[in-house]
Parts: sequence; structure tokens; C-alpha cells
Amino acid sequence: MNKSRLEAFTDAVIAIIVTIMVLELKVPESPTFEAIFEKAPYFFAYIVSSFFIGVAWYNHHYMFTLSKHITKKIYWLNNLWLFSMSLIPVATAWVGEFVNDRDPEIFYLLIFAFWSYAYLFLSKALANQLENDGGPAEKIRRMFIYRFMNSIWYPVILVIMIIIVFVFPPIGLLIGLIEVIVNGIKTTPDSDQLDEFID
Amino acid sequence: MNKSRLEAFTDAVIAIIVTIMVLELKVPESPTFEAIFEKAPYFFAYIVSSFFIGVAWYNHHYMFTLSKHITKKIYWLNNLWLFSMSLIPVATAWVGEFVNDRDPEIFYLLIFAFWSYAYLFLSKALANQLENDGGPAEKIRRMFIYRFMNSIWYPVILVIMIIIVFVFPPIGLLIGLIEVIVNGIKTTPDSDQLDEFID
Amino acid sequence: MNKSRLEAFTDAVIAIIVTIMVLELKVPESPTFEAIFEKAPYFFAYIVSSFFIGVAWYNHHYMFTLSKHITKKIYWLNNLWLFSMSLIPVATAWVGEFVNDRDPEIFYLLIFAFWSYAYLFLSKALANQLENDGGPAEKIRRMFIYRFMNSIWYPVILVIMIIIVFVFPPIGLLIGLIEVIVNGIKTTPDSDQLDEFID
Amino acid sequence: MNKSRLEAFTDAVIAIIVTIMVLELKVPESPTFEAIFEKAPYFFAYIVSSFFIGVAWYNHHYMFTLSKHITKKIYWLNNLWLFSMSLIPVATAWVGEFVNDRDPEIFYLLIFAFWSYAYLFLSKALANQLENDGGPAEKIRRMFIYRFMNSIWYPVILVIMIIIVFVFPPIGLLIGLIEVIVNGIKTTPDSDQLDEFID
Repeated sequence: MNKSRLEAFTDAVIAIIVTIMVLELKVPESPTFEAIFEKAPYFFAYIVSSFFIGVAWYNHHYMFTLSKHITKKIYWLNNLWLFSMSLIPVATAWVGEFVNDRDPEIFYLLIFAFWSYAYLFLSKALANQLENDGGPAEKIRRMFIYRFMNSIWYPVILVIMIIIVFVFPPIGLLIGLIEVIVNGIKTTPDSDQLDEFID
Repeated sequence: MNKSRLEAFTDAVIAIIVTIMVLELKVPESPTFEAIFEKAPYFFAYIVSSFFIGVAWYNHHYMFTLSKHITKKIYWLNNLWLFSMSLIPVATAWVGEFVNDRDPEIFYLLIFAFWSYAYLFLSKALANQLENDGGPAEKIRRMFIYRFMNSIWYPVILVIMIIIVFVFPPIGLLIGLIEVIVNGIKTTPDSDQLDEFID
Repeated sequence: MNKSRLEAFTDAVIAIIVTIMVLELKVPESPTFEAIFEKAPYFFAYIVSSFFIGVAWYNHHYMFTLSKHITKKIYWLNNLWLFSMSLIPVATAWVGEFVNDRDPEIFYLLIFAFWSYAYLFLSKALANQLENDGGPAEKIRRMFIYRFMNSIWYPVILVIMIIIVFVFPPIGLLIGLIEVIVNGIKTTPDSDQLDEFID
Repeated sequence: MNKSRLEAFTDAVIAIIVTIMVLELKVPESPTFEAIFEKAPYFFAYIVSSFFIGVAWYNHHYMFTLSKHITKKIYWLNNLWLFSMSLIPVATAWVGEFVNDRDPEIFYLLIFAFWSYAYLFLSKALANQLENDGGPAEKIRRMFIYRFMNSIWYPVILVIMIIIVFVFPPIGLLIGLIEVIVNGIKTTPDSDQLDEFID
């Protein structure tokens, strides 16, 4: 499969997803800063989700740069991953409007969990295919996010997060932000040293 | 014609079409899971249409990778195909809201039929041009979706589908999904072995 | 200037413009074909504008494929042209809703006229620059749309169109469609023989 | 990092940002030119913001064309810059609706200021990295916008602008426009002589 074309298609979808979130930052109906401040919870949710998608893009870029063959399986796992990501704007808008409510906060975490597993399955397929192609599959398997989501502790962490949110809802977005920051900091540092893998 | 540029333009249009469908998943007005569950019919229609577009992209990618010359005729058939696809979000939103009503379900199938024929005409033009260019036109003509839609049974199947929906409307989306799944499974497996055709 | 990057940026903007027009095809509020048929005028306007943008893209592709250097002047004329095109969805939506009214029909033609001159200035700058670069500038200057819009009769035609619409408004879109079809048919046939100009 | 892919992703985001601004030019509810003229303030704000983004793209293109390595730091500063730009449609829509009010005009300038600093930090990181890579970093550091925003006078100018708007709100957009025009005119003229830097 034409890797560049799939990357470009993926990027177009991600770019639209991240940008339509700003459409929910509806224009205030009165010309006062108070009217803007009322958007603060959604604005915070928008920051978390944007940052999250930034980390996701970085990791996707890293894995695809290394890849040689994009199989039918990888194509569909990539689509599943994009599908999971397309639900983030809705989850963000909902949690941004009802920041103290249990259901929207849990829903946000559930979408997050769905996304994680779509991402993990995609990573595994890419690593396995790269191994078949004689490429450095261990570069993918050593990524922090890969080891984190592949660990037996990850589902446990997700359940604990949901329990915490069940008890004290407003903390949901904050937990999400912490997870994103940790993953953002731990992204691979050598992404600018992959020139040999770029056509 | 610059094939890469037309592919990129096509992909941008497809990416927008698939992503604006999520805008119809309007944010629930109350912070309860019940409010989310009310979206279930639209969510199901969104899954069918996304999956459908995923299969379409896969096949388009396959045919364009093989192609050498993009003629004026192919350009316009590609536009017709994109135009037919641009009607899917409206049809999806309508059927998702009125999942038990006859007219929206039939409308969805009609758009689907319009799309099929736009796709078939595009495939034929690509295959003929590829033949002129001395390329492997039979790779296009042997695609399952090509043989399926080119068969004399295809219009019969469409009419039967519409009759079934006329009698029992809610089954429309399900029939669509089955057709998409069959076509998805039967897509060409060698799309990752086309390296020689990629510039 | 990196021609490919500017082409890709231009294509992304055009793809969004053409696709957001479909957002105005609002989902019918009742599940009947009558509710869909009420959208017919807008649907007709959408067809005209989509077709129009298809012709525009074709010509833009032809001129840019030939070009060697993208100067600052060309960049800004390209932006002006994109800006004029970004007004088409609004004009389309307005005329589609009030298809028998004078002002929306005239407004549509005015945007069309604005677009034509932005296009003509861009074409002239591309042809002049191509001449400086020793390329086949006459290929641009011999394009039907170039000669049509560059002729002293073009402003006369525009004024006549506006007078006709003033007298009988509903004919505006139809006149636009005829002009688009003529230009569409007369596009250069050799756009698939430019391989030597593609990097 | 794959520079082309990041450029394409950036361009997709910018293209969406600039195009969704036109969605705020809502379709008039009555078929008269008066109804269109009521949109004039927003239309003016849309022109300023589009022009602004055109200048920004030009400068971004210039800096990225020169760059050799895209580091993790540059990636995140690029994201911060895109994030700041994603707030422009909201600020534009707000100021366009309340063109005589103090808060929206100040808000517009604050977003503008946020954008400037994101841009400046990105420029500095690109120049430093280019210096490390043995490239012509001085080409970035000599750009007018770089020297303008890096000067100790820039924050003073921003404060003066905000004071002026505080006293006489409607002038805010006009000041913005002047700043954009100055920066637009002073963009580097040699962007079409960078062929050696384009892969």
C-alpha cells in the first residue's frame, strides 16, 4: 500500500478532528469577558484533547516512518483507530459542558480506553509486520506508550480511573491530562534521527 | 494529470466527508448515559457509513496505484464519484434519525446505488485507460467489487433490497452493512504488493 | 516557493469549500420524500457550484503543473482566488434558499464575477512568470477560459447576465450553469500529457 | 521527523481554520442586499483574519523550507502555534459580531499576542536547530517578522494597542489590519529562490 497516501489521508482526518473541536467553542452571545469565561471548562477540555491528539500524532508518525509494508490488516486497524479518535470531539464537548457530572466524565474515559486499545492493536500489527520485513520492530515495542498500554497494569489503571471518577467526577479530565502529559514527555526522543527510513 | 495531486485532493474530500458525519452526533443536552443511548441509531448509521467509506477508499487506492495516466474523462468520473459520496452524510443523518421510516431508508439505498454506479463507471474508465497504457487492467477487472457491480444481477439485488425495505424499513441499514462487510472482506489482498507501481 | 506544498494547501482549502456546501443540505425534519424534495433548489445550486469548482480545480492544476517558480505575487493572487472561492458556499446557500429572488441571484453572479477576475489575474501572473522562466507560457494563454475571461466581451457578458437576472431572477443559476458547462467542455484536453512537467 | 508529513498536517489544520471562518458568514434569512450588508463587520473581520493567516503561512513555509531536522521541541512549538491559531475563528466571529465593544476587540488582540509569541518561540527553535545543522539560520533571524516580534518594543506596542482599544474599541481590527499589512509587505522576497532547499 502507498504509505505516503495513507499517511496523508490519516493526517487529513486527524487535522479535521482536532479543528472541529474548536467549533464547539461557540461564539459568546454577549460582548463581555464574563461570557468568555463561561467557556473555561470547555476550553480546558479542548486543551486536554488537543494535547492528547498531538501526542497520538507524534507516535503514529514514529511508527509509520519505520514501517515498510502497509497490509490490509494494518489499514483496517488504522481506520479503527481513526474511528475511535473521531469520537473525541463529542466526548470533549459533552464533558466540557457538564464538567461536574459523572456520566460525561466516565464517557470521556471510556472513549479514551477504546482509543488506547485501538492504538495498541495498531502498534502490535505494525511491529509484527516490521519484524517480517526485517525492520527494527523493537523500536516500536520499546516505545513508552506501547509498554504502558501493553502492560497487564493498564486495564487495572483504567478501572481505578473510572472508580475515582465515579466517586469524584470533576477529576476525570485532570487524570486524563496527567496521563497525556506523562505519555507526551516519554515519547521517543529520536524521531528526528529517522532520515534513513524516510523515502 | 498529476496523479499524486488528484489523489491528495480526493483524500481531502473523503476525509472531510467521513469526519463531518461525526458532527451530526450532536452533544447530548443532559449529562446522563440515557442521553447518549438515544444517539444509538445514528451511531449505528455512522458506523455503517464510515466502514463503507473505508472500503471505498481501499478500492480507490488500489485502482489509482495501478493507474498511469489520469485523463479528463477519469477526472470527471472521479468528481462524480466524490459528489455521490458527499451525499452520504445527509443520507446517514436522515436515516439515523428516522431509523424505522420507509423514505429515509429507501433514500439511503438510492444514494448507495448512485454511488455504486459512479464507482463502476470510474472503475471501467480506469481499467480501459490502463489497458491502453499497457498496464495490468485485469487486476481492476478481477476485483470483487467490480465483478459484483458489473454483473447483471447487481440491479436486481438493488431492486430486491428496496422492496425489502419497502416492506420492513428498519432492515435497510442492516442490508447495507452486510453488503459493505462482504465487499470489505473480498477486497484485493495484494494491495501491499504494489511497490513497483508506486513512484 | 515549494510548489507541491502550495498545491496541497490550495487543494485542502478547495476540498473544504466544496464539502462544506453539503452541510447546508440540512437533514429534513420529517421522514418523507416531500421533505427531501423541498431541498431541490438548494440541491441544484449545490450541483452548479460543485461542477464550477471542479472546472476551476482542473484549470488550476493545468497551470500549476506547467509552472516552475511560484513568486510572492503568485502566492498572493492564489490567496485572493481562494478567498473569492470561499464566498461561494454562502452565495450558493443564499441563492438555493431564495431561488426566485433578485438579490441572491445577482449576488451569486457578482461573486462569480469576482472569482473570474481573481482567476484571470492569477493566470496572467502565472503565464508571465512562466515566460520569464522560459516555459510554454502560450499553453496558459491559449486556454479557452483565459481567452474568454481576458476578452473585452467578458465584462459585457457579465453585465448582460446581471440585466437578465434583474428582469427574470430564477434564470441566474441556469446562466451560471451554462457558462460552467461551456468552460468545462472547452478545458484543455492535453492535461494527461504533461508528464514531463511533473517532478 | 518527516518534514513533508508535518508540513502537510500543518497545512491541513491551517486550511480548515481559515475555511471554517466562512461558516460564520451565516446565510442571510431574507433575500435582500440589506441582509447581506448587515454582515459587513464580520466580513471585514474575516478579511483581516484571512490575510493574517496568509502572511503566517508564507512565513511558516519560508522557515520550514530552510529547515533540515524537525526535533521534538520544534514539533511541540509548532503544535502550540497551531493551537493559538485555532482560536482565531472564535475571536474573529466574536469581534465581527460586536465590533464596537471593548471586550471582544481586546480579546482579539490578546489572541493575536498569544499567536505572536507562539510564532516567535517556534522561529527561535527553528533558527537554533538550523544553526546546529549548519544551515543558513541568519535567513530566519533576518526576517522582518522575527526582528519585529523579537524586539523589546514589541510588548510595548502590544500594550499601546490594547490601551488604544480600551479607549476607542472599534479601532482594534483596523490596528490589527495595519500590522498584518506591514508584515505582509515586509515578508522575505526570496521565497521563490529556495529551490536548493526543496527535496
